[in-house]
Amino acid sequence: MNFKIVFRVLGLLLLIEGVAMLLALLVAILYQEYDQSAFLIASGINILLGGSILYFTRKARRDIGRHEGYLIVSSVWIVFSLFGSLPYVISGAIPSFTNAFFETISGFTTTGSSILADIESLPHGILFWRSMTQWLGGMGIIVLSLAILPVFGIGGMQLFMAEVPGPTPDRISPRIRQTAKTLWGIYLIFTVAETLLLWVAGMSLYDSVCHSFTTMATGGFSTKQASVAYWSSPAVQYIITIFMFLAGTNFTLSYMAMKGNFRHVFADEEFKYYGLFVIGFTLFIFAGLLISSNIGVEKAFRDSLFQVVSIITTTGFATADYLLWPPILVVIIFLLFFFGGSAGSTGGGIKIMRIVLLLKNSYYELRRMVHPHAIIPVKFNKRSIDPKIITNVLAFFMFYFVIFGFSTVIFSIIEPDMESAMGAVATSLGNIGPGLGNVGPAENFLHIKPLGKWFLSFLMLLGRLELFTVLVLFSPSFWKE
Amino acid sequence: MNFKIVFRVLGLLLLIEGVAMLLALLVAILYQEYDQSAFLIASGINILLGGSILYFTRKARRDIGRHEGYLIVSSVWIVFSLFGSLPYVISGAIPSFTNAFFETISGFTTTGSSILADIESLPHGILFWRSMTQWLGGMGIIVLSLAILPVFGIGGMQLFMAEVPGPTPDRISPRIRQTAKTLWGIYLIFTVAETLLLWVAGMSLYDSVCHSFTTMATGGFSTKQASVAYWSSPAVQYIITIFMFLAGTNFTLSYMAMKGNFRHVFADEEFKYYGLFVIGFTLFIFAGLLISSNIGVEKAFRDSLFQVVSIITTTGFATADYLLWPPILVVIIFLLFFFGGSAGSTGGGIKIMRIVLLLKNSYYELRRMVHPHAIIPVKFNKRSIDPKIITNVLAFFMFYFVIFGFSTVIFSIIEPDMESAMGAVATSLGNIGPGLGNVGPAENFLHIKPLGKWFLSFLMLLGRLELFTVLVLFSPSFWKE
Repeated sequence: MNFKIVFRVLGLLLLIEGVAMLLALLVAILYQEYDQSAFLIASGINILLGGSILYFTRKARRDIGRHEGYLIVSSVWIVFSLFGSLPYVISGAIPSFTNAFFETISGFTTTGSSILADIESLPHGILFWRSMTQWLGGMGIIVLSLAILPVFGIGGMQLFMAEVPGPTPDRISPRIRQTAKTLWGIYLIFTVAETLLLWVAGMSLYDSVCHSFTTMATGGFSTKQASVAYWSSPAVQYIITIFMFLAGTNFTLSYMAMKGNFRHVFADEEFKYYGLFVIGFTLFIFAGLLISSNIGVEKAFRDSLFQVVSIITTTGFATADYLLWPPILVVIIFLLFFFGGSAGSTGGGIKIMRIVLLLKNSYYELRRMVHPHAIIPVKFNKRSIDPKIITNVLAFFMFYFVIFGFSTVIFSIIEPDMESAMGAVATSLGNIGPGLGNVGPAENFLHIKPLGKWFLSFLMLLGRLELFTVLVLFSPSFWKE
Repeated sequence: MNFKIVFRVLGLLLLIEGVAMLLALLVAILYQEYDQSAFLIASGINILLGGSILYFTRKARRDIGRHEGYLIVSSVWIVFSLFGSLPYVISGAIPSFTNAFFETISGFTTTGSSILADIESLPHGILFWRSMTQWLGGMGIIVLSLAILPVFGIGGMQLFMAEVPGPTPDRISPRIRQTAKTLWGIYLIFTVAETLLLWVAGMSLYDSVCHSFTTMATGGFSTKQASVAYWSSPAVQYIITIFMFLAGTNFTLSYMAMKGNFRHVFADEEFKYYGLFVIGFTLFIFAGLLISSNIGVEKAFRDSLFQVVSIITTTGFATADYLLWPPILVVIIFLLFFFGGSAGSTGGGIKIMRIVLLLKNSYYELRRMVHPHAIIPVKFNKRSIDPKIITNVLAFFMFYFVIFGFSTVIFSIIEPDMESAMGAVATSLGNIGPGLGNVGPAENFLHIKPLGKWFLSFLMLLGRLELFTVLVLFSPSFWKE
């Protein structure tokens, strides 16, 4: 294991985090609030520490292999969250370190669960930094899922990148750099476009930027305690819906669409099912709301669509408190906790592609049963899928449910309410944000015991890094040799 | 499709059901209660109808292929339940046909969910028949899972029967007959042994027989409203625990144990994990009960062990109402709803072997991730498992959860309470018996709306026949050719 290069990468990233804090400092200075010095100090710490590490590791060998990759990815999110919580603690906006860490890792993992009970009382710089943690987390995830993990063979994106060769160290870097650049370009374009549209629709520029940051990251932090429900304007809500949907779409497809290659986009099976799931669940909830409430047809439709897209993409914004809906609709929403965005999007969760592969495999099994001697491989995007990928997806799925089950049990010891425990665990593991019961969309996570907050933080990390990336570090064979 | 032979087999089985009813008639005559004529009439209908069908199909070709097999298996359980509900309806013990059908299919599928609110008020013949439906159902399942399904390649028992050749019609019958005879022998020996032990321990002979019937079938119907809690004698409760455990063990292993081949039994991986799960969950709940209640050490241990074995084997007897336990223990019990007995036992659910295979595959995937070029197959009982079996298990697992999820949604429309809906669906699909919320161990299913009862009946059938057997009938390719 080349630990030096691991430290070096972390140092570089700390430096970047420090620079990012300078942006928040700028906002703080602009609004002349009490958080200015906090950003100055936090940024200073990050830049100095990052710089020193870079200096002391300048002689590190440059080869990053599989082992180093796994270690870097997991530690980046932890280190970022540790140092990213400094502005909260130093400014006194969130005095408790546990709470500050929870809020920061919930940001970097693009989860969006919050311990804040009075968001509007916080200074602009702090809330800007809070939104930015998600935006940076989203950037990290795009590189991770579309450039780094495929090289390691995790995350299912191999399907789209059959041409990627095995992980020969010297080939990784240039490829990652090129892919990352292109995708960040798209991420930036979408963020700017949403900001402008929200601004035109009547949001303040500040709120527009913050919400665009957290939409594109499928994060879900808002600058208002009431979340997006604060803006009653349908235009604002529809704009956010559209960009949540885009953020939950494979960024490779958006890239193709931008190059005018729409045929490829609409032929993509994951995209088709993603659309079908959104339409199907929206219609179901729409019908349910029409029957059970009298909020009007347009509002019922908007609320259904917004909540379905928000949950399925794992964003977690709210324009309505779904816990006040009839039980059946709550069940549907909870089911959606186990979907997640497309592979190669910023969305978390199990992901549409995995679900589609598993459903297809099950359906094909029925045919295999009738024709036991025929060889019937699972097809996806008209290509036969290597059984290895199916096995990998199966392993992921099993881990996901075992972790969900056991975590619910463990969390029930800390917070003894089954529905809330299930909701808190599912929403953390899926990087969604709001849960069920006492952590619903109208509630927050402040009242959870410290141990519970650390536990949920770990689940957020686990879910965000596609389980394997973290789990592999706990496997004895990883450390052997 | 050779429909004639399908009818012929059904006719033969109706005849057998009619003869079985004569046994219940004997009990009714013994106790001189009002249900005598009901059994006479019901038995007459069955025997006459069965006999006529046999007569009219006497020229049917004898070849039963894969297609006929699937159709027979699914229709047997439905036809048995339809005609098996006659004694309830005719005697007036359960006047509503919906309720009577629910009770009967809950019996034949060895589920044990009941619509009875005052069991003790019913005549002895009726309760004997009720217990017998489970015993017959258990017999059916043993043949199905150990003799018929392996030949069709479902149920995972291929693992134990690698020597079974492909389904060449002329080879099926003699093999099935031999296997069935041996296994029924064991089933009968266990039933007699349990009856004698319970009798010695102080139960009446009648109750001993009835409870042995429903223990060995992992059914869970009791002759008392309070279930096994009625007998406060520890001896009775421990005896039932032991036989529930045996009923949830692969009958092939019991056969080996009887032949003195214990080495093979203890080397069996499924058996090892089955034991580990039982011990692990028992200790966890035992600790929980010690902390949270003051019922005494022995009673706390007995209650934990009994409930864990009862749920994991999908029997469903109760000596305590687990819904009154602390929430975390309820979550554990609900987790156990998704285990199930061993393959080749009378237990339902997902089954230990499938869970172990999936867990192993997930664990091996971590190793595959570290060593991407190594070929690491899943091993079970020291043999490498064909990836085809892993795919099949995956398909089963996925179907199970999709059906659980969507059924919960559908059932929430009928009975709007999420926890109860989840419990009712999980307990029906897993053939357990009691659920959560308003269908807990101290409750019954009487209050469920008729539509809900039919829906749960379908789920019981689906779960009992390992999903595929029923689902394949809905697959278009089954009917094409």
